[in-house]
Amino acid sequence: MNAKPGDRVIVTTKKEEVDGILMPNQETEALVLKLASGYNIGISQDKVVDVRVAEAAGRDAVKADKPGQEEQKKANTTETEEAKKLPAIAILHTGGTIASKVDYATGGVIASFTADDFLAMFPEIKSIARIKAVLIDNLMSEDMRFSHYQKIARAVQQEAAAGVDGIIIGHGTDTLAVTAAALSFMIESPAIPIILVGAQRSSDRPSTDAALNLLSAALFIAKTDAVGVAICMHETVDDDACVILPPAKTRKMHTTRRDAFKAVGDTPLARIDYEKKEVTMLKQGYLRKEDAKTDAAAAKAAGGKKMAIRDKFEEKVGILRVYPNMSREVIDVYIRHGYKGLVLEGTGLGHAPTNIPENHPNYEALKEFIAKGGLVVLTSQCIFGRVNRDVYTNTRRLGNIGVIYGEDMLTETAFVKLAWLLGNYGKEEARKLLAKNLRGEISERTEL
Amino acid sequence: MNAKPGDRVIVTTKKEEVDGILMPNQETEALVLKLASGYNIGISQDKVVDVRVAEAAGRDAVKADKPGQEEQKKANTTETEEAKKLPAIAILHTGGTIASKVDYATGGVIASFTADDFLAMFPEIKSIARIKAVLIDNLMSEDMRFSHYQKIARAVQQEAAAGVDGIIIGHGTDTLAVTAAALSFMIESPAIPIILVGAQRSSDRPSTDAALNLLSAALFIAKTDAVGVAICMHETVDDDACVILPPAKTRKMHTTRRDAFKAVGDTPLARIDYEKKEVTMLKQGYLRKEDAKTDAAAAKAAGGKKMAIRDKFEEKVGILRVYPNMSREVIDVYIRHGYKGLVLEGTGLGHAPTNIPENHPNYEALKEFIAKGGLVVLTSQCIFGRVNRDVYTNTRRLGNIGVIYGEDMLTETAFVKLAWLLGNYGKEEARKLLAKNLRGEISERTEL
Repeated sequence: MNAKPGDRVIVTTKKEEVDGILMPNQETEALVLKLASGYNIGISQDKVVDVRVAEAAGRDAVKADKPGQEEQKKANTTETEEAKKLPAIAILHTGGTIASKVDYATGGVIASFTADDFLAMFPEIKSIARIKAVLIDNLMSEDMRFSHYQKIARAVQQEAAAGVDGIIIGHGTDTLAVTAAALSFMIESPAIPIILVGAQRSSDRPSTDAALNLLSAALFIAKTDAVGVAICMHETVDDDACVILPPAKTRKMHTTRRDAFKAVGDTPLARIDYEKKEVTMLKQGYLRKEDAKTDAAAAKAAGGKKMAIRDKFEEKVGILRVYPNMSREVIDVYIRHGYKGLVLEGTGLGHAPTNIPENHPNYEALKEFIAKGGLVVLTSQCIFGRVNRDVYTNTRRLGNIGVIYGEDMLTETAFVKLAWLLGNYGKEEARKLLAKNLRGEISERTEL
Repeated sequence: MNAKPGDRVIVTTKKEEVDGILMPNQETEALVLKLASGYNIGISQDKVVDVRVAEAAGRDAVKADKPGQEEQKKANTTETEEAKKLPAIAILHTGGTIASKVDYATGGVIASFTADDFLAMFPEIKSIARIKAVLIDNLMSEDMRFSHYQKIARAVQQEAAAGVDGIIIGHGTDTLAVTAAALSFMIESPAIPIILVGAQRSSDRPSTDAALNLLSAALFIAKTDAVGVAICMHETVDDDACVILPPAKTRKMHTTRRDAFKAVGDTPLARIDYEKKEVTMLKQGYLRKEDAKTDAAAAKAAGGKKMAIRDKFEEKVGILRVYPNMSREVIDVYIRHGYKGLVLEGTGLGHAPTNIPENHPNYEALKEFIAKGGLVVLTSQCIFGRVNRDVYTNTRRLGNIGVIYGEDMLTETAFVKLAWLLGNYGKEEARKLLAKNLRGEISERTEL
């Protein structure tokens, strides 16, 4: 087979001819082709009679969305003029399933595509935007640390300064929403859209959701003037529309579904019907477009080109999920190791096993942590709803020792917010800002 | 005012007359009446012109559901015959909002009703069943420990031996579903229905959901022959129907909503339309009615009257929710304190920050915990869906050191199951049973 990844090929089997783009890193016993519909298909090697290169890769700077030979010819002739009109998007590649393939050593899936591979897999994007792909990291997102958030934020800043119209960040889904929350705090005056995308099925599988998420993010950037950090993932399990989700109020709510990402105590910001190429804004102004213009103008006036970021994090911050029968040693560990902040993920309206007897060891441990200078923020394992200090005697007891009520913040958001505040502000300022809405992470009211 | 809690009273204000049952512990500036509709209403004391006792409490062993004078007369005359036909239900009272009132010392809500108060508040129940109320504890459920589960299980066993047809357990909502899961494991041959109920608003408030939950549970016991442990809570925010939820696959998913309890990866077992007094079974056979009959017959034949329970728990079991930037000391604490079991609540399909570098301190700590004899069960913070060892290289790494994949078990269910298994079985038996479905806590397949 002379065909190379990215080539448009005609694969002949005993039954049919299949026209599509050959996907890279073919080590399986099947060829994977990306069809004009956007779907991938796998064809078993032993059924393949012939593979013919219809069009070699690398010649098509602008490619039509559903490439047929007629459209392609047109695209090639109008390449320069059309391409110039398209917005410039930088794709920052951090790893995860969206950029992963099967690891034939173990049979599992590992992150391993290069940025060029990644771009070759989604040729349709070239009809939406001028693309620059940058490999900034290559890890599954469960291993993301604060240092990775800093690396990403600085890369965002750099690309923005270089003049791109928008940034797409490819990210593993496990902690994608946590990184989105972290970036929303770190990037204080976003002048362009910064959209995180992931995939629940790896990009070289026929069932991948990567293409729709990535292309919808690009379309959102190209068709709107919204700015700021957000997430773009499938709206439903169908492969036809995506939603733009708020960075600090979104959570991965299913291990495998394509529509696992849900706004919690909030709504999607926009909907992208990819078939119709339509973007509908559902919550105008959320992404602070007007603010951004003012900020950007001010920055320009001041001679600055870079977006302002605050990128420090306090490393000594943890999450403790309470559970029945819990003993104080699991709180004490945060005291012994000099932690500065702790998110206490309580039950219900914000409770913890701290009340019976009145001087419960857990209660005493929390008091000690706070007395030694730590900040404790309370969130709820319920996921939905708001913690409330004023309903029960037991919550008041926690309030009385200085526990801060996290309102309707997600546990993960409260965690990165706390680490970010303690990294960039003094303790008293951090305490004040914790229960204040900074990036849409706290709603005014919770629906009952 | 001569009226006492439980009396049916006619309250006259400048605008209207209100007929209802006076609720107990009136220390507020308002009277609270339970209306015939089941709803409570609060009437400001300064608007009250007159309170007349229409019918004193304590004379009505059987009370019609919507008591009018005509119905009441009839009920009184037919009391003995009708009451005899009704099923006997024991209400075990453990505390929580369903049995709580405002604490005027602090303004919060505390658990403090006696069993008699509780019964006086829900007089309608007497038309559904012969009721025995037992005060076995009085605490908010965030403070429930394994010792409380044991107390409840033994009380259940005792009441069952005394011949009741069903048991209702009043419980705080925070950990109600966890206690339900624990009881479902402990009670090995339930011969009667054991239904946990709670309330999101305290029982002396006009907006309480306690009445519908309690009465629907009683109706479910009276109208069906299903047996086993289950939960009865509001189906929607409307005050007209309840659902019976599976004990080991239900979660409190909102801090305040009346319909906060949701089956996760499962469906409700039954629906109770309380207005129409109709019970619809949605999942016949789930509660092992046939098994129970056989078990009960066998027990009777063997001369035993008691339901079999296994009520031991291993105290040294914890839950660790992983988070970005996590350091090994939060795993080490479980090693240092000799824990025997740990539920690792990972991200996505079952991941943890353990992979970069390859000998990550967290990875080494988990290896050490397992090498020292501990069992680790992996669940997912996604809540919905199933963990899977076989998709990613990173999950395989955890599997290789002996981490057990918790399938689609809820974290809380995996926690009580692990503690219960280690308390009642040897370690190897516990390991085997962990990933096996015992009480509906593991589904065969997860919908994608």
